[in-house]
Amino acid sequence: MSHPAFANWLSETNDVTRTFLAAGQIPGLINLGGGLPDPETWPVKDITALANRAMTEHTTDALAYPPIEGLPALRDEIARRFSATGLNLTRDNVLIVSGGMQALDLIGKVFLDPGDAVAAQSPAYLGALDAWRPRSPVYRPMVFEQDDFDPINALTGAKFAYTVPNFSNPTGRLVPLAQRQALVDAARASGAFLVEDDPYGTLHYDGEPLPRMLDLSAQDADRPYDGPVIYLGTLSKGLAPGLRVGWMIAAPEVIAAMVTAKQGSDMCTAGLSQRIACDALAMGLTETVLPGILSLYRARRDGLCAAMKTHLDGAFDWQVPTGGMFVWATARDPRLDTDTLLRTGLDHGVCVSPSSVFDPVNRNRSAIRINFTLNHAEDLAEGVRRLAQAVEATLAKAA
Amino acid sequence: MSHPAFANWLSETNDVTRTFLAAGQIPGLINLGGGLPDPETWPVKDITALANRAMTEHTTDALAYPPIEGLPALRDEIARRFSATGLNLTRDNVLIVSGGMQALDLIGKVFLDPGDAVAAQSPAYLGALDAWRPRSPVYRPMVFEQDDFDPINALTGAKFAYTVPNFSNPTGRLVPLAQRQALVDAARASGAFLVEDDPYGTLHYDGEPLPRMLDLSAQDADRPYDGPVIYLGTLSKGLAPGLRVGWMIAAPEVIAAMVTAKQGSDMCTAGLSQRIACDALAMGLTETVLPGILSLYRARRDGLCAAMKTHLDGAFDWQVPTGGMFVWATARDPRLDTDTLLRTGLDHGVCVSPSSVFDPVNRNRSAIRINFTLNHAEDLAEGVRRLAQAVEATLAKAA
Repeated sequence: MSHPAFANWLSETNDVTRTFLAAGQIPGLINLGGGLPDPETWPVKDITALANRAMTEHTTDALAYPPIEGLPALRDEIARRFSATGLNLTRDNVLIVSGGMQALDLIGKVFLDPGDAVAAQSPAYLGALDAWRPRSPVYRPMVFEQDDFDPINALTGAKFAYTVPNFSNPTGRLVPLAQRQALVDAARASGAFLVEDDPYGTLHYDGEPLPRMLDLSAQDADRPYDGPVIYLGTLSKGLAPGLRVGWMIAAPEVIAAMVTAKQGSDMCTAGLSQRIACDALAMGLTETVLPGILSLYRARRDGLCAAMKTHLDGAFDWQVPTGGMFVWATARDPRLDTDTLLRTGLDHGVCVSPSSVFDPVNRNRSAIRINFTLNHAEDLAEGVRRLAQAVEATLAKAA
Repeated sequence: MSHPAFANWLSETNDVTRTFLAAGQIPGLINLGGGLPDPETWPVKDITALANRAMTEHTTDALAYPPIEGLPALRDEIARRFSATGLNLTRDNVLIVSGGMQALDLIGKVFLDPGDAVAAQSPAYLGALDAWRPRSPVYRPMVFEQDDFDPINALTGAKFAYTVPNFSNPTGRLVPLAQRQALVDAARASGAFLVEDDPYGTLHYDGEPLPRMLDLSAQDADRPYDGPVIYLGTLSKGLAPGLRVGWMIAAPEVIAAMVTAKQGSDMCTAGLSQRIACDALAMGLTETVLPGILSLYRARRDGLCAAMKTHLDGAFDWQVPTGGMFVWATARDPRLDTDTLLRTGLDHGVCVSPSSVFDPVNRNRSAIRINFTLNHAEDLAEGVRRLAQAVEATLAKAA
């Protein structure tokens, strides 16, 4: 007998995603397609010492089933760090998750029945689309750059709006203050929740950080936060991704529903990782390593953009991002299909991410995302040279 | 504006589950309701040394994003351990998961659209019901003890059958060899997959272990396993639960679908935990600690059952389990509602798990699950004394 079919959503992944994810295996390839931190930024000695301390001084935290919600000390530390004038956070506002991706999975489980509407910043983070595919939502793309973008219209009737306001993946764009405020106002007016996914907020190379929507949405400092924002943070960019520790900050009733969903998802997040995260945050380790990360990534951004200026100026338009991990470049020639460019690029020994994988409706084939955090300056420059050749080859075929 | 509603499945959890899960907070309570290993069984020094080794000798494994599928060395180790005469397993048959619960979540995502049928051993593991609630399946209870149980009938048209053949949670029952074979045959005949959830298989106190359905279903040793069984294992009972490391063994096409689901669930399992697990298995640490675990738990099972014989013989029927973590006891008096007994028990300072939470259709209120692995002999005996008082009080009210 043949086996029963897999669930319907599994047939909806596209082969561009598979091509792009499999690229890591090609020898000699310069991979500008991923979104990985550079391992040289990890404070290995400090984490080793913290792992030891976790095992010897906090054995139960490290080895027992932690509470579903996360270790109390870690929840308290997150509440303390994000509390601010006007923003009162307690342990009940915090859920520890197994990396930022799990927060997205739980949001899908808690809010989405098939056909429910999600207003998603477009282009959108590929991982969020992956996480919600099993819940079969309907997307309303929010293009913040369009003059007629209307937050109230976008959010009304949606379960939630999904945004990456700081150095968005894939565009590297910073959502301006007025638009953050408008989104918060629209969430209040429509009732929709507002997901503020913030993995890149600390990776700020120029200028001043903008206020979080979590802060903008706080209304009454006398009681714990119960506003519409669901804020997501992670240690993957600022400490080390393999720990798989992130957090969600939201109204206590939202956290309680997420706990029910997490119980049936992985029961709890690894205790050893949580204890290391807790002690790393308490001792200020993320602050200690941040300046080194910023100067490394700032120089690489500058190197990438200089090489792009030399080799890709005629083919693409882009803005130099003020933070994050990516440059988003839009093709000038409408004949340049970036799904095709992905494959031609692989033949030329370079990988970039095509825009189609970031489009909730899978149509955009005119842009690419280039990562600058993982590769050294020479490799970034060589990757751009190869990409320029791939662009020429792609256009020659299209002509 | 009021917020939009949570997803429909969230309204389906029952308050008995919440009462029972919250019991851990009551001071002085003897908790026989959980399913926790005793912390004194953890090889803390060995795991500390392995954590150090992971951080110093395998830094990338510990701190980078591991592959979605899991660390190759750990997948190879699992494949090696479970390969047997006639059973050819390779890395492609193995997915590393963030604890056994995640395997259940992924199975739900990969197989279930709303209304799909699951044949579930009844009573069933509470956690599996939790994991699948967001997928809204329809359950066909399989009561193996019933003379007219027909595996072909149960599996035909179901996406999969769910079983815990070794010392089932909650009943502690061992599924007999003939029935294992009949389930494998029914899976082959019907096409349905057969989930063999095996967290307790090594906790074997008397007699000989029975063959796994994974082994019974192997047909051709010349090629990697591609049979209908999806086998789930974990380190939570035999090493330490806080590591959150488990594994799934299945046909490569099933593993590939699970990888797509895991990518959108938590991206990957914590690297430090995986590396510790890999080295612990490779050095035989689980085998080293097992005899100590078995003699501790065997003595506690004997202590619990002796106390039950003294105090509960008139009120319940039970079989002494030959392994696992639980005794399942069925009330003799039909007026003894075990949901009520849960609450009366809490007033008397003891917690047991009521049968309703293990019933896919939430009806069974005639039995209780008693855990014997966490508490010392004196506490087990005192807990049973309190339970006997609670039974009297419950029946007095019901009269």
